Amino acid sequence: MSTHAQQTRPDTVTQLVEDLARAGRAAQGQLALLDSGAKARALRTAAAALRDAAPAILAANAQDCAAAEANGTSGAMLDRLRLDAGRLAGIAAAVEAVAGLPDPVGQVIDRSEAPAGMALSRVRVPIGLIGIIYESRPNVTADAAALCVMSGNAALLRGGSEAVNTNRAIHAAFAAGLAAEGVPAAAVQLLPTQDRAAVGAMLGAAGLIDMIIPRGGKGLVARVQADARVPVLAHLDGICHTYVHHAADPAMARAVTLNAKMRRTGICGAMETLLLDAAFPDSAGVVAALLDGGCTLRGDARAQAIDSRIQPASANDWDTEYLDAVLSVAVVDGLEQALAHIARHSSGHTDAIITGDDAVAEAFLARVDSAIVMANASSQFADGGEFGLGAEIGIATGRLHARGPVALEGLTTYKWQVRGSGQARA
Amino acid sequence: MSTHAQQTRPDTVTQLVEDLARAGRAAQGQLALLDSGAKARALRTAAAALRDAAPAILAANAQDCAAAEANGTSGAMLDRLRLDAGRLAGIAAAVEAVAGLPDPVGQVIDRSEAPAGMALSRVRVPIGLIGIIYESRPNVTADAAALCVMSGNAALLRGGSEAVNTNRAIHAAFAAGLAAEGVPAAAVQLLPTQDRAAVGAMLGAAGLIDMIIPRGGKGLVARVQADARVPVLAHLDGICHTYVHHAADPAMARAVTLNAKMRRTGICGAMETLLLDAAFPDSAGVVAALLDGGCTLRGDARAQAIDSRIQPASANDWDTEYLDAVLSVAVVDGLEQALAHIARHSSGHTDAIITGDDAVAEAFLARVDSAIVMANASSQFADGGEFGLGAEIGIATGRLHARGPVALEGLTTYKWQVRGSGQARA
Repeated sequence: MSTHAQQTRPDTVTQLVEDLARAGRAAQGQLALLDSGAKARALRTAAAALRDAAPAILAANAQDCAAAEANGTSGAMLDRLRLDAGRLAGIAAAVEAVAGLPDPVGQVIDRSEAPAGMALSRVRVPIGLIGIIYESRPNVTADAAALCVMSGNAALLRGGSEAVNTNRAIHAAFAAGLAAEGVPAAAVQLLPTQDRAAVGAMLGAAGLIDMIIPRGGKGLVARVQADARVPVLAHLDGICHTYVHHAADPAMARAVTLNAKMRRTGICGAMETLLLDAAFPDSAGVVAALLDGGCTLRGDARAQAIDSRIQPASANDWDTEYLDAVLSVAVVDGLEQALAHIARHSSGHTDAIITGDDAVAEAFLARVDSAIVMANASSQFADGGEFGLGAEIGIATGRLHARGPVALEGLTTYKWQVRGSGQARA
Repeated sequence: MSTHAQQTRPDTVTQLVEDLARAGRAAQGQLALLDSGAKARALRTAAAALRDAAPAILAANAQDCAAAEANGTSGAMLDRLRLDAGRLAGIAAAVEAVAGLPDPVGQVIDRSEAPAGMALSRVRVPIGLIGIIYESRPNVTADAAALCVMSGNAALLRGGSEAVNTNRAIHAAFAAGLAAEGVPAAAVQLLPTQDRAAVGAMLGAAGLIDMIIPRGGKGLVARVQADARVPVLAHLDGICHTYVHHAADPAMARAVTLNAKMRRTGICGAMETLLLDAAFPDSAGVVAALLDGGCTLRGDARAQAIDSRIQPASANDWDTEYLDAVLSVAVVDGLEQALAHIARHSSGHTDAIITGDDAVAEAFLARVDSAIVMANASSQFADGGEFGLGAEIGIATGRLHARGPVALEGLTTYKWQVRGSGQARA
């Protein structure tokens, strides 16, 4: 490639992304006119198209998996990439589940009367064009597209290079299903290039892409958050705390903390730090349950005194998201110390208290400033499905627009409708 | 100043802004614990302090005005800068009015029950630290501070250099009033430097400043939108349309369009483009009322045929916010053409229809994708006060978080509260 070509390549990719974004915006204008039934029908047809295309999708996936194995891809990453008939059926079923969710578009948030007499209402409308940047899980191609379409948004998808063939096959089937119901093909577009400059072009497309949602590891999310000129909906870390207050029921404390840490250690809602009240009488039982359950504990000096199997924590541990069977443990003297620890170290994702004292629970729920605050429940419930939202597009720890699990409603904005009878302003 | 000092200056300013932001965040943590009554009391005391400090504030303002005049500042700019006893009383009264508004913090947006049985609620909480960057109107110092405090947010204010003495005097009185009620001084801070690098430092303070609101001319807003790494709440342009449908009542069409353009030409909700339906029988009357009212009209060929006083429009006119007694006028063939014109040229601020046909009005309200859509009312109503919100911090045309007039609620976000009874996730 000539020097000239190398210099112009980023411009070409930027042009491509801008062209796709404009096409997506135009398609979104048509999508916005569809009623809930039409969008649901299109998604059900897309789900059927995914089932019909199973042989092609699984063949494409086998190709991606073979390439990944040849590249020495590890077990967990390969597992995220791999599809089989059951997983593909699950993807199609998930699209149908989205079709069955209540459509937020057109919902009236509130109504009021202007002092001059006009009727005011705030009505939910789609955001516009959503960019989704994701890594190896090919199900995101269908999941994210379905949530965008049901909420009246166009989607511009950029999947990981390791899943390129799978994503293309899923996208082709999905888009064909939409098209069969008259939804414009550009409502859901998959970036046709794996050029990394395309990610930069998406992140810079302010005014063309309305929101970017990264789905993947910390490296991807951090890059998107650092470089985006477009608003980003995401969470970087899930450094989730559980504070066991002295008035906690010991059996509940054991069961909930064990679940919060060990049910699945790799999810963002997994507990990463346990705060034990010095006055809680069963710290030894809580700690033993975790250790016996196979968790490595790293504690401050007072925590280490509880059980000799607890290793010493370093200063970094309090700011570490292990995503593994490892937990940092500190002993605190009451609610205020627990709140101070959380204020300093929480990533603002999910923090929980276990207590039998309602007043203390309410103080914790009021004062901890995280997207999700819980009393007497496992932080592993931090999930749109567990919150009854249906599928979620992600969990947001930013402070604006939407926080916590984000589903269809979080993919909408609102406009003000004003109905007058000829009012002129005095 | 040595070369070395010049090179290090931006770092010093950045450090200053970061230190102020950290102090503001710490103060916000305390502010968030105050109940509505305590915040209202603090604002009423701040209002009283503004009245008590009137001699000092007016003396500082006289100094600013003299300097501005010496610099050849023009009438309108000088008028925005100048305070007198009446205007200052208005500023204090506006602070008291904010103290009387319902506090959004703690409001429950909605409640539900998780499938596993926990009670879920979404509760409004402050956003955190709000940066306000503004120009010559010194009232913003008190207005913005009051809205931030009432919504539990800390404010970091950066006013225009032309109002530096006035802003300092207003801020000193306001902060003293807050402090007298136990609100930490850093809850409302005014940047102590007019160094332009401070604006850049504020715009780059992602993670320290949660939201930036620019208040001022297009140059300021454009710079903030282009350079900010922090989310921005703003509108750049108010290219507002009024479409006179063929079924509009002629008298209403004349009165509303005249008001929409001429009541005050310099506000963002002023109509900038009039779309006349070719089948509307009284276009000549609407046009004559505007011309006779002193408005210059620039039209397309069909509009020019209505009245010989209409000048030819250039292609730029359709994308121009005149903020003056100038209006572009086009003739359209029905609703679809009007919608297409608006989709292409609107800035997404406020667009209106005048029609006696309810079905057409509803189609317009549903399909125009602007922050505010109106039927049979003047676009000059695009204002938080006219919407019954009390004082507004600004009008937003972005698509996320808040759209249209933004008042106290727009200065909040929410968190999820989860109340369980020991649930562990299956």
